[in-house]
Amino acid sequence: MSTEQYLVRLEYAEPAEVSQDELSALRRAERERAHELQRSGMLRELWRAPGRRASWSLWSVSGATALHEALTSLPMWPWITATVEVLASHPNRLAEGK
Amino acid sequence: MSTEQYLVRLEYAEPAEVSQDELSALRRAERERAHELQRSGMLRELWRAPGRRASWSLWSVSGATALHEALTSLPMWPWITATVEVLASHPNRLAEGK
Amino acid sequence: MSTEQYLVRLEYAEPAEVSQDELSALRRAERERAHELQRSGMLRELWRAPGRRASWSLWSVSGATALHEALTSLPMWPWITATVEVLASHPNRLAEGK
Amino acid sequence: MSTEQYLVRLEYAEPAEVSQDELSALRRAERERAHELQRSGMLRELWRAPGRRASWSLWSVSGATALHEALTSLPMWPWITATVEVLASHPNRLAEGK
Amino acid sequence: MSTEQYLVRLEYAEPAEVSQDELSALRRAERERAHELQRSGMLRELWRAPGRRASWSLWSVSGATALHEALTSLPMWPWITATVEVLASHPNRLAEGK
Amino acid sequence: MSTEQYLVRLEYAEPAEVSQDELSALRRAERERAHELQRSGMLRELWRAPGRRASWSLWSVSGATALHEALTSLPMWPWITATVEVLASHPNRLAEGK
Amino acid sequence: MSTEQYLVRLEYAEPAEVSQDELSALRRAERERAHELQRSGMLRELWRAPGRRASWSLWSVSGATALHEALTSLPMWPWITATVEVLASHPNRLAEGK
Amino acid sequence: MSTEQYLVRLEYAEPAEVSQDELSALRRAERERAHELQRSGMLRELWRAPGRRASWSLWSVSGATALHEALTSLPMWPWITATVEVLASHPNRLAEGK
Amino acid sequence: MSTEQYLVRLEYAEPAEVSQDELSALRRAERERAHELQRSGMLRELWRAPGRRASWSLWSVSGATALHEALTSLPMWPWITATVEVLASHPNRLAEGK
Amino acid sequence: MSTEQYLVRLEYAEPAEVSQDELSALRRAERERAHELQRSGMLRELWRAPGRRASWSLWSVSGATALHEALTSLPMWPWITATVEVLASHPNRLAEGK
Repeated sequence: MSTEQYLVRLEYAEPAEVSQDELSALRRAERERAHELQRSGMLRELWRAPGRRASWSLWSVSGATALHEALTSLPMWPWITATVEVLASHPNRLAEGK
Repeated sequence: MSTEQYLVRLEYAEPAEVSQDELSALRRAERERAHELQRSGMLRELWRAPGRRASWSLWSVSGATALHEALTSLPMWPWITATVEVLASHPNRLAEGK
Repeated sequence: MSTEQYLVRLEYAEPAEVSQDELSALRRAERERAHELQRSGMLRELWRAPGRRASWSLWSVSGATALHEALTSLPMWPWITATVEVLASHPNRLAEGK
Repeated sequence: MSTEQYLVRLEYAEPAEVSQDELSALRRAERERAHELQRSGMLRELWRAPGRRASWSLWSVSGATALHEALTSLPMWPWITATVEVLASHPNRLAEGK
Repeated sequence: MSTEQYLVRLEYAEPAEVSQDELSALRRAERERAHELQRSGMLRELWRAPGRRASWSLWSVSGATALHEALTSLPMWPWITATVEVLASHPNRLAEGK
Repeated sequence: MSTEQYLVRLEYAEPAEVSQDELSALRRAERERAHELQRSGMLRELWRAPGRRASWSLWSVSGATALHEALTSLPMWPWITATVEVLASHPNRLAEGK
Repeated sequence: MSTEQYLVRLEYAEPAEVSQDELSALRRAERERAHELQRSGMLRELWRAPGRRASWSLWSVSGATALHEALTSLPMWPWITATVEVLASHPNRLAEGK
Repeated sequence: MSTEQYLVRLEYAEPAEVSQDELSALRRAERERAHELQRSGMLRELWRAPGRRASWSLWSVSGATALHEALTSLPMWPWITATVEVLASHPNRLAEGK
Repeated sequence: MSTEQYLVRLEYAEPAEVSQDELSALRRAERERAHELQRSGMLRELWRAPGRRASWSLWSVSGATALHEALTSLPMWPWITATVEVLASHPNRLAEGK
Repeated sequence: MSTEQYLVRLEYAEPAEVSQDELSALRRAERERAHELQRSGMLRELWRAPGRRASWSLWSVSGATALHEALTSLPMWPWITATVEVLASHPNRLAEGK
């Protein structure tokens, strides 16, 4: 199955009507789900944009529909806005191990 | 030595006063240099932004000064404009092999 | 083979150092190539943005790399800058014929 | 009757003071109305922008006033902001069946 | 025949490789063509944006394709970039004579 | 009295703490006021921007202060943000009746 | 005669095909014309935006058409792009001498 | 004491949790404070941007810190966002009385 | 230990559901923490952007992750959005004392 | 004499009609002038923005006019565009030595 790669910038809005406990639970669930997505190979890299409620992530999935399903599976999805950068293979990229 | 990671978007202007041969030579040299940077571990990922003279790249270097030196070592540097995204480590990132 | 759909906005710069004849030849070749891409099923829709040297187009290809190759196969590629919108399938879309 | 084509980007704000049940009912009604608009031939294509509460859609209607009426007929209209791209016919577009 | 209305902002680039005489001739032809378009009823209003090589204009044509043809019929078209605002009828607009 | 012409884009925020009845009353008053302004000759044209809570309007008033007073006389003013485009007369504009 | 006030930001492009002498002559003429406009009362204030080939200016003229004519009377007009801010009178402004 | 000049654009957010009386009192206090600042010579010019809750103002103060103190002394400061344009003296400005 | 330098622009949202006392306490804590960060050498410079709830600051830390940790240690972090400018050493910078 | 502080972002355009020798001479002169400005205390900090022909600099001068004169004294001034950020003193800044 061919895969598509995407660079995704996630911006998190601050959940307004959510109690402190609910928020901690949400964050734990988000962390859990992120680990699952990494173990599945879909989520390959994850960084924090310093000073912002935002992250950069590298995804390897079957296509845009699969990407959307993975993103909406995140517990924090209701507060997430994603910007998706399309990635094509680059002629100057060294094949693995060369 | 601690390393910093950066996501870098490179936009290439079209070299105006350069002959076709010179341009091909430049592109070969650019390709060669990209391979060296990948073998050195500094340039870890390289993708093409489809439909544009632009690329996305992931760098792992000692800091911003080293990043600048690596970018200016590219033969196409005179026609390059880079946008640098700072990357901090993310608490939800799985350590390798977990 | 699964296909990815993209909405692509093409902006055309005005070719500076090109004679009138060369320009007409380029435009004929561009038209010819556009017809081939439409017959191949890759280029599914093509519109003109009124008042600009720009177009909107709908593509159905195997992925971002194939999209890039199709775009760079256009004779006017040296003067083209593309903005690519990623498209995922929508739950409210009626399957054909329903 | 001559028709005009428009590419429309719809951004959905998150309904704040609406209960979960009301929201599900709204979404079902939105889905129903989208199907009607597709069967009428006005709404010809509909995609999801991955990672966002947004969609891209292709419309074929008598003109801008008809487009506005169709958009305001969507149950989610109070939370919708649309960006409308005007489409003119393109000389390089192959007539159907050629 | 139903007509569509558009507000169009025209930005004029400064013609570089054109002699003073050619430029004056172009401007006379542009003026002549603007008069024809106004007499035809297609170009209904025309204003200058002060301090810029730009204008605002109100058009009443059969649709986007007709608008594009009218704009490309302007002698200065090679140096023009247009931004087109779509106009739908407004419920608060008084019918003529009321 | 010399008059100045302005193209004004009005964006309407959604009134939050206003009941359905109050909103309908506001809209009727807005419609009434728009008719008065048109009969006065100040508001010469009014269109709806499709898919948005926004309108384009053409005004002919004594100057910027008069324009501001006319805009703040609209019942929906508390929810309005206006963008004002200055209009100078254009040399290529045909005098009426020519 | 009622006057309109405008805040105008002037950006100066660098004249390319102009000799050093011509440029100095142009600058002297620009200075001369600026003095005339200030003595006429049309140009009331003039500042430099530090670090840019740009200025801010306050104008008091009969209207937008007069503003445009004054701006195009500047010798450097072919290299100027102006952004015009409309100014209405403010209720909190103290009348002169109070 | 040398003074610095600044062009300041003030945008006013709509005070949400403030009663009508409190708002009128705030506006009177704002008006009073504006008069004091004008009599002090710090606030030299004040205009309204038509159609917006915004104003343009010209300040003459000892420097950026003094400007900030003057702005925060405005009763409406909690709802104000200022954009500050730095102003240097312009060589083409006529000295007073010339 | 090598250090990285960053220019950071901090924008402060207005804390909505916080009492006046809580806000004063927060501001005192923010002030205290800023002093600690300055004594530690991490926060080297701090200025206020006049007329905005925003500041510019110069940081010298081990890298992006340390920068993020320092920023999130600020008591006002929940209302802060930071824009981080990466700084490389400049060849024209005079070494200290030269 | 009171001083004003400014953060200045300098963007350098690529000098087109300048020979390699002239360019090297210009760069040496630019470096020399930068050293003088640093020794004078006007130019207090200077960094390179990695991957761009741009720098960030901290200035301490008598005001905006002095800043402009210092910037135009740079040999590369004809190819420079500066963005000036105004800096006011911050209440949380520790006095030196505390």
